[in-house]
Amino acid sequence: MKNHLVVFQPQGTAGRVTEEQTLQEAARELGVGLQSICGGRLTCGKCRVRVEEGSFPRFGIQSSMAHLSPVLEEERSALEKGGGCDGYRLACAAKVYGDVVLFVPEESRADRQIVRKSVTERAIAVKPALRQYYVELAPPTLSDPLGDWERLAAELARTFGLKDMAIDHLALRGLSASLRQAQWKATVTIWRDREVIRVEPGLVETVYGLAVDIGTTTLAGYLCDLHSGQVLSTDAMLNPQVAYGEDVMSRIAYAAANREGLAKLHACVIEGVNTIVRNAATQAGLQPEDISELVVVGNTAMHHLFLNIDPQPLGRTPFPPAVHRSLDIRARELGLNVHQSANVHVLPIEAGFVGADNVAVLIAEEPYAQDEMVLIIDIGTNGELALGNRERLLCCSCAMGPAFEGDHIRFGMRAAPGAIEKVTIDPQTLEVTFEVIGGGRARGICGSGIIDAVAEMLQAGVIDKSGRLRRGEAEGFIIARAEQTAIGGDITISQDDIRAVQLAKAAAYAGAKVLMGKLGIATLDRVILAGAFGSCIDKEQALRIGLFPDCDLERVHSVGNAAGDGARIALLNVDKRAEAERVAREVDYVELTAEPQFVREFTEAMHFPHMKDAFPHLETRA
Amino acid sequence: MKNHLVVFQPQGTAGRVTEEQTLQEAARELGVGLQSICGGRLTCGKCRVRVEEGSFPRFGIQSSMAHLSPVLEEERSALEKGGGCDGYRLACAAKVYGDVVLFVPEESRADRQIVRKSVTERAIAVKPALRQYYVELAPPTLSDPLGDWERLAAELARTFGLKDMAIDHLALRGLSASLRQAQWKATVTIWRDREVIRVEPGLVETVYGLAVDIGTTTLAGYLCDLHSGQVLSTDAMLNPQVAYGEDVMSRIAYAAANREGLAKLHACVIEGVNTIVRNAATQAGLQPEDISELVVVGNTAMHHLFLNIDPQPLGRTPFPPAVHRSLDIRARELGLNVHQSANVHVLPIEAGFVGADNVAVLIAEEPYAQDEMVLIIDIGTNGELALGNRERLLCCSCAMGPAFEGDHIRFGMRAAPGAIEKVTIDPQTLEVTFEVIGGGRARGICGSGIIDAVAEMLQAGVIDKSGRLRRGEAEGFIIARAEQTAIGGDITISQDDIRAVQLAKAAAYAGAKVLMGKLGIATLDRVILAGAFGSCIDKEQALRIGLFPDCDLERVHSVGNAAGDGARIALLNVDKRAEAERVAREVDYVELTAEPQFVREFTEAMHFPHMKDAFPHLETRA
Repeated sequence: MKNHLVVFQPQGTAGRVTEEQTLQEAARELGVGLQSICGGRLTCGKCRVRVEEGSFPRFGIQSSMAHLSPVLEEERSALEKGGGCDGYRLACAAKVYGDVVLFVPEESRADRQIVRKSVTERAIAVKPALRQYYVELAPPTLSDPLGDWERLAAELARTFGLKDMAIDHLALRGLSASLRQAQWKATVTIWRDREVIRVEPGLVETVYGLAVDIGTTTLAGYLCDLHSGQVLSTDAMLNPQVAYGEDVMSRIAYAAANREGLAKLHACVIEGVNTIVRNAATQAGLQPEDISELVVVGNTAMHHLFLNIDPQPLGRTPFPPAVHRSLDIRARELGLNVHQSANVHVLPIEAGFVGADNVAVLIAEEPYAQDEMVLIIDIGTNGELALGNRERLLCCSCAMGPAFEGDHIRFGMRAAPGAIEKVTIDPQTLEVTFEVIGGGRARGICGSGIIDAVAEMLQAGVIDKSGRLRRGEAEGFIIARAEQTAIGGDITISQDDIRAVQLAKAAAYAGAKVLMGKLGIATLDRVILAGAFGSCIDKEQALRIGLFPDCDLERVHSVGNAAGDGARIALLNVDKRAEAERVAREVDYVELTAEPQFVREFTEAMHFPHMKDAFPHLETRA
Repeated sequence: MKNHLVVFQPQGTAGRVTEEQTLQEAARELGVGLQSICGGRLTCGKCRVRVEEGSFPRFGIQSSMAHLSPVLEEERSALEKGGGCDGYRLACAAKVYGDVVLFVPEESRADRQIVRKSVTERAIAVKPALRQYYVELAPPTLSDPLGDWERLAAELARTFGLKDMAIDHLALRGLSASLRQAQWKATVTIWRDREVIRVEPGLVETVYGLAVDIGTTTLAGYLCDLHSGQVLSTDAMLNPQVAYGEDVMSRIAYAAANREGLAKLHACVIEGVNTIVRNAATQAGLQPEDISELVVVGNTAMHHLFLNIDPQPLGRTPFPPAVHRSLDIRARELGLNVHQSANVHVLPIEAGFVGADNVAVLIAEEPYAQDEMVLIIDIGTNGELALGNRERLLCCSCAMGPAFEGDHIRFGMRAAPGAIEKVTIDPQTLEVTFEVIGGGRARGICGSGIIDAVAEMLQAGVIDKSGRLRRGEAEGFIIARAEQTAIGGDITISQDDIRAVQLAKAAAYAGAKVLMGKLGIATLDRVILAGAFGSCIDKEQALRIGLFPDCDLERVHSVGNAAGDGARIALLNVDKRAEAERVAREVDYVELTAEPQFVREFTEAMHFPHMKDAFPHLETRA
């Protein structure tokens, strides 16, 4: 049989295919991913390609349009619905009768990409766990009385090459009705090319998922369109478990000391996630049942409580988690009010105190794919550090306390309207200027404001390198005077506040030093500051107080909630889930409390910026 | 390295193995299945073998005992617990240092067998889906803080070669507590060598399952020990769905006509199965949570209602089921009160009216493994027929009505105390003698009694071949006079009762004839009568009224509840589940209503025993 040259642009993929093959078949054969929901039924119009006309000397092709089968009525109307047919063809309809050059527009690609903000802007391929397939079945007859599921499974195998499909029990329950409702035309949503989770009457082209970051203090959700990869809405709220303890350890203790403790903490976070589901869906004009998959990250204790696993062993040395590997659990088993057959993918755990949230940070920042030596600090009540490059990656956890979240600080508050977020102190006059989130009078001071304040007080000599407030400031250093505040009194930084900042920054610094010692390195190529509030931290001030070892400030980055980003990435791309599994297993966990030099490092790091270490990159600025 | 000859009796398996291997390793290498729960820890004592002493000229072996490593203290005490060590060794302890002959007692075999009553007594290998493994783990330390699940999974892989294990979400929840409760010694129950469903502290050597037959009228359960294959208790009850309709069609209609119809019918049968679970467990001295797997069979409508699948399509031509293939569903998803991670295996469906119950009958009787042409009649309100041999197998369904279950018969009742189960009529005097279940006065007449009565009335000329009662019996023929009954009046067989029997037997006979026509055969080699009450039917009387085509009565068998037997077999042996899947796919379903000759066959079969067909095997008796 004759064959012809087919070229797909802009990929530049070219090859010869047999005459009379469709462009869709040609694309499949040449490994060019084209969208196809309806399986060549001219219904979905997703596989539009533009036929390039003119001369293509490189390929020896003169013209293309005439080398394809003519446009039939059905194809024309599908093309017109999709935005006109001028120069376009449906790849599932057009057959090859000569050499052709085609252009695949972005929206027709199966392997669409979204560009993600990160230190180095990275493109993430959209390759979700859920895919949709449109089917038209022949209704059963007395001579062909095959069961509904086997009928559907046979069609999925025939048209889409999907073999050995399973179907969720609840999807099976509704199958017969869905198929009959639209005269045996239906859209099937399949999880990981393995299991049917949804059968909807007629042609449906939308599928949604939710990425959830369960922080000790904050729950955040990102509702995404799984076709385009776009975030449609986001929602965040205080983790309702805060009522049972502010940090991880107090919640573990609550679960241990109270008979129904675990059940309460679990119910609490499930209710919180359900609230986020409702809010995010409403914002996007959707129903909770429209959410067909969730990806969840959180530190190990949050992970356990979310899954209703007793966290007690996490509270005692050697702090082993119940499970490391990632999990796929039916959302209904957890009481989540999303689609009844939705899956919840929970990213893996590195160690007792380095959880799925840190794995998410790693797959977002990919230090394991780089030559540079990168330090990542995920700032939080329970801080998590990672250090390494493609050769080796270490991680550890350090108890930073909630100082940088504005908690356990006399006038501390979260980064919300009324919070002082920026502070400058004139070294000569000691005059303080500050900025308040949302303007107006100050109500308190948030994490970035505290770092600013301490760094400026240090610079101005209000505190010395050991953190001692100079004489005369026994009541604390005034940042905002009563007449500038909304609380009827001064907002000050006390000696205790400074100690809390010292403990937090020393923990991170000492952790970084222990990891650097393990890798035998003296300097860092790059530092990444992550955390739900990490993006507003002034990196120069952070270096000034010694939150991390010296580094070129051009190479220090605040990336915001990298854990949330990682959750979203895993939601959109199953390959990144496999990558997460790999990195969680390969990263070496360092238990700081078992490291003899940790206490010394910690003590030395209590100084501003450090008792001994030099900061050449700071000196060039000062 | 040296090697030695090892012979396992009574299997006669022999082969050479490397010196210093244990007998357990040797057995594994030679393909001899030995029990092992503890994985060679000398704890369970399950792998006892007897060392044969003396001369074995065939193998050139002189003596055996001295060719094994000496008995150590631990082994001796394990052997003594297990019934003495005289001549016995634990295969996991004894190492090979010379040629040996061993005898494997029945209780040490991994492939134990149970003998099942059937037409030809058959042995069923006990090969359940659930197996238990005893593990001892090293507790986590700071230098080895691996998570609990990964710790267990690594041990399962190391000691038992079980790779890529999964764990049910609820089993994972309890894992940490179970492991710590008995100092990291635990017994793990694994489903199909794939998924951990249970972790219990210490050494546990018991695992139980329940086989359930959901009949339109009767629910029956068989609680089995999955190690020995023994039935520990049985329980049966009226299907509570009877309140919503006596036959399949009326329940389908109920589900269609009432908004909550399906939900009610589903809740009903689940509650019924839960009652059987409770009763069977109590009888066996167990708790419902001790039941770790269920196998369920039932006709297609019962199957759908049990699974909460809308049965409406089953009520309309072409009667397609929602699903054919077997299903594995978590018991908790169905609301069954057994072990929280138990699986429910539902056998496959053949067609809209030939369900998992018939598949169970087939794997119990194995017509597809025989050369003889076998007809199997599963008698029930919805009768199911199978005809064939190893070449080809056909099945069909026929609406027999409940006459043989004693229903829709004026004085009909189920086979229970007070039921007339046997009837004789003197052809000369027309004197009736009868037997009552449990003795005493009669309360009604059950299926076998009805068949007897009609056959005897025919023999005595009280009815003619067309089923007409002779003149003078307008009120019906008296079987028991008022003074012989407990109901204050006569028990009679009316003209309507005879018609109901005619309809039932004609349906079965005509179905058999259509199937015989399809296979082009004129005679049957064997007939099997199955049904919950099938064992008490007098096969000669059944042939006399023409319930099935002529056959040598020596080759007609009443086997009782073969569907329940098949469910039990599938519970005990996973290979039989695969066989069920195969046969359900391979058996050819014949839709009688689509067969043009069915009406003629049915009409002719209304006569006693038949309008045209000859019954040579009856004539030789008469």
